[in-house]
Amino acid sequence: DVRRMLNGIPPADIAHLLESSPPKFRNILWKLIDVDIEGEVLGELPDDLQAHFLSRMDAAEVATITEGLEDDDIADILQQLPDRVTWEVLNSMDHQDRARLEQVMLYPDDVAGGLMNTDTITIRARLTLDVVMRYLRRHEDLPPMTDNLIVVNRSDQFIGLLPLRTLLVSDPATTVREMMVTDVDPIPVDMPDHEVARLFERNDWVSAPVVDEGGRLLGRITIDDVVDVIREDADHSFMSMAGLDEDEDTFAPVAKAAPRRAIWLGINLITAFIAASAINMFQDTIDKVVALAVLMPIVASMGGIAGTQTLTVLVRGIAMGQVGRNNQNWLLVREVTIGVLNGFLWAAVVAVAASMWFNDWQIGLIIAAAMVINLVTAAFTGAALPLMLTRFQIDPALAGGVILTTVTDVVGFVSFLGLATLFYA
Amino acid sequence: DVRRMLNGIPPADIAHLLESSPPKFRNILWKLIDVDIEGEVLGELPDDLQAHFLSRMDAAEVATITEGLEDDDIADILQQLPDRVTWEVLNSMDHQDRARLEQVMLYPDDVAGGLMNTDTITIRARLTLDVVMRYLRRHEDLPPMTDNLIVVNRSDQFIGLLPLRTLLVSDPATTVREMMVTDVDPIPVDMPDHEVARLFERNDWVSAPVVDEGGRLLGRITIDDVVDVIREDADHSFMSMAGLDEDEDTFAPVAKAAPRRAIWLGINLITAFIAASAINMFQDTIDKVVALAVLMPIVASMGGIAGTQTLTVLVRGIAMGQVGRNNQNWLLVREVTIGVLNGFLWAAVVAVAASMWFNDWQIGLIIAAAMVINLVTAAFTGAALPLMLTRFQIDPALAGGVILTTVTDVVGFVSFLGLATLFYA
Ligand SMILES: [Mg+2]
Ligand SMILES: [Mg+2]
Ligand SMILES: [Mg+2]
Ligand SMILES: [Mg+2]
Ligand SMILES: [Mg+2]
Ligand SMILES: [Mg+2]
Ligand SMILES: [Mg+2]
Ligand SMILES: [Mg+2]
Ligand SMILES: [Mg+2]
Ligand SMILES: [Mg+2]
Ligand SMILES: [Mg+2]
Ligand SMILES: [Mg+2]
Ligand SMILES: [Mg+2]
Repeated sequence: DVRRMLNGIPPADIAHLLESSPPKFRNILWKLIDVDIEGEVLGELPDDLQAHFLSRMDAAEVATITEGLEDDDIADILQQLPDRVTWEVLNSMDHQDRARLEQVMLYPDDVAGGLMNTDTITIRARLTLDVVMRYLRRHEDLPPMTDNLIVVNRSDQFIGLLPLRTLLVSDPATTVREMMVTDVDPIPVDMPDHEVARLFERNDWVSAPVVDEGGRLLGRITIDDVVDVIREDADHSFMSMAGLDEDEDTFAPVAKAAPRRAIWLGINLITAFIAASAINMFQDTIDKVVALAVLMPIVASMGGIAGTQTLTVLVRGIAMGQVGRNNQNWLLVREVTIGVLNGFLWAAVVAVAASMWFNDWQIGLIIAAAMVINLVTAAFTGAALPLMLTRFQIDPALAGGVILTTVTDVVGFVSFLGLATLFYA
Repeated sequence: DVRRMLNGIPPADIAHLLESSPPKFRNILWKLIDVDIEGEVLGELPDDLQAHFLSRMDAAEVATITEGLEDDDIADILQQLPDRVTWEVLNSMDHQDRARLEQVMLYPDDVAGGLMNTDTITIRARLTLDVVMRYLRRHEDLPPMTDNLIVVNRSDQFIGLLPLRTLLVSDPATTVREMMVTDVDPIPVDMPDHEVARLFERNDWVSAPVVDEGGRLLGRITIDDVVDVIREDADHSFMSMAGLDEDEDTFAPVAKAAPRRAIWLGINLITAFIAASAINMFQDTIDKVVALAVLMPIVASMGGIAGTQTLTVLVRGIAMGQVGRNNQNWLLVREVTIGVLNGFLWAAVVAVAASMWFNDWQIGLIIAAAMVINLVTAAFTGAALPLMLTRFQIDPALAGGVILTTVTDVVGFVSFLGLATLFYA
């Protein structure tokens, strides 16, 4: 039946099913999940949904279902709970588990320390590979994603890696010291998660050791968790541009989704009123030539589109670490050049179209000039704004679009209506 | 000096440096790269830049630098070249390399076959682990990211995986058949790359076998290449919303970037004229009450913002495979409900603000009604449009925004100015 089918698929697929279900159906599904895989399913859920299901459990239940999960996943779960419940859960664990977990929980979710597991297999450099093999055979199993054994000295400091690949093809009589890889830098425990992700991507790592300031081994990070960071970071830019959270639950109930959306609409309403005030200064001109009211949104919207293109390119470039002090001027110049070229191109087209539509060559001239002004402004703002916001540590994907379109709206309306006021005066 | 420093860093970092440099500097840097790592650097570059540097090489040079690269990377490079050059390169290879490569090149870049390598290590089920260990020791090295040995039958059909982890902890006297994992489904060679990525993410794989329709093993896919697919897919949605290509080169020269941007501006110009025509129908009303021209962009822009939020949630949900026939109606109803709620909330605020600004309660009433109409339309369009576009296999991230804002502009202007015409008539 349904229950058996559900519990037969991998926990990540169950998590996906929960994520893809409306709230009521989620609660029904959750009740059908076997207690012994509940923890794994929970570990795969986004924070929002974790919190939802956790809010109905007491400390004993949380302790039961998190048994056997990876440290980083348990830490994530415990960090969602009220402090009191967290302590109850920790107290119910044995001394060793508790010590390990407290180690991981020292670090926030978005640095290397929060991503790591303590399930490292460490060996000493003086051993022969044969001894290492016998040592491994004493294990029931090796942790998932173990591609390297970690070589440490007697103070537990990281000194190198012995890939399993090397272990398997090398002469058993050689020592770890002879065969280990030493040109790999371990990850400092406080490195931000997106930098960790970049290192994994560039070096094609499966796992990497994490050390404290003293070089002592604390744990290791595995690619599966890095993949989640990459996915989240990429989502962040996309969702922020619409004022949404990267963790936004696709099937969030109205009561949760509506207030968040409302705030973003409110912010944008303020900017819309700013643009309206710009138009308001030119009431008399519009009263004289009503065609201006018909054409003015064209100038504003083309500026918004052009600026958003530049902003998007810059936001991605910044997120990928491609944009820095030594190349940002080149980018600025390029964007403005594109703005000028596309400004003149579309100004010419719009001029002809507007002149013919309203049978008035003056209005064509005016809209053409305004279009050039606005597309150049859009290019400059779209490029300079994210650079400036980043310097002030403001997220350009979130704030950039709002500020940019306010600028292009105001400049679009003022340049078009202002020029018209001069011409028709 | 510079040359030595440059060639001392990992190829992926050199590739990043090239990506982060303006065109002229790129060409200078490229000349400084040692010939023996040129291939690896090239393999890490996006298609655009690969094509740029490849265009200056002859077949002999391409053959030299691609030596020792992974099959999938060589295939990617060869697929960029003119057919004549590709054949010259293939002809210069030895028979075995050529056969292997032609196998990979049979498949497009965006299916499993185009991602795979043929560097599999296969074993037979009847062997003991001890024999397998001795077989491995005859290798110089194992391919990177080898976490499993692949078990095949005498017809080369996939029958299971032997994790290196298992090999290392198990009794050498047991057989592969006893220890192998058989509950893993191999990847069909024609599976789209985003589905492959989803399987890797959900199952936390490091590598996975690829088979043809007959179940015969063709190669394997490794997580490093899957990470690139995930990054690309996420970039796709983000860049498409601004009419940009996911592979867009951040430092593309003006001559390349300007034409692409121009096309997007042209498409949007058409939609801007459609919106203008909507306003044009109400010239007389605007002539009577100029304040309408001041307020009308507020209604249109709030609709655009609200619709974009809905569209963004849906586009991401569809991309993640969360949205299907059985839950899309729930989403549609939720979005419209949010639209109604936020419509009334901000309609009330705008009504008060507009009434006070123009000292005219009628205009407040009109804008409030138009706001509710437009926010509900925006919610419905933002949700229904991507579902429809996806059904017609049109990319909702690319086409969605353009169509949506045209709808919200037109409905915004027509509802506001139309109601005003009725009221002030
Ligand atoms: Mg987590
Ligand atoms: Mg993060
Ligand atoms: Mg964590
Ligand atoms: Mg990589
Ligand atoms: Mg983990
Ligand atoms: Mg994990
Ligand atoms: Mg987060
Ligand atoms: Mg490639
Ligand atoms: Mg692709
Ligand atoms: Mg390929
Ligand atoms: Mg995963
Ligand atoms: Mg590869
Ligand atoms: Mg690769």
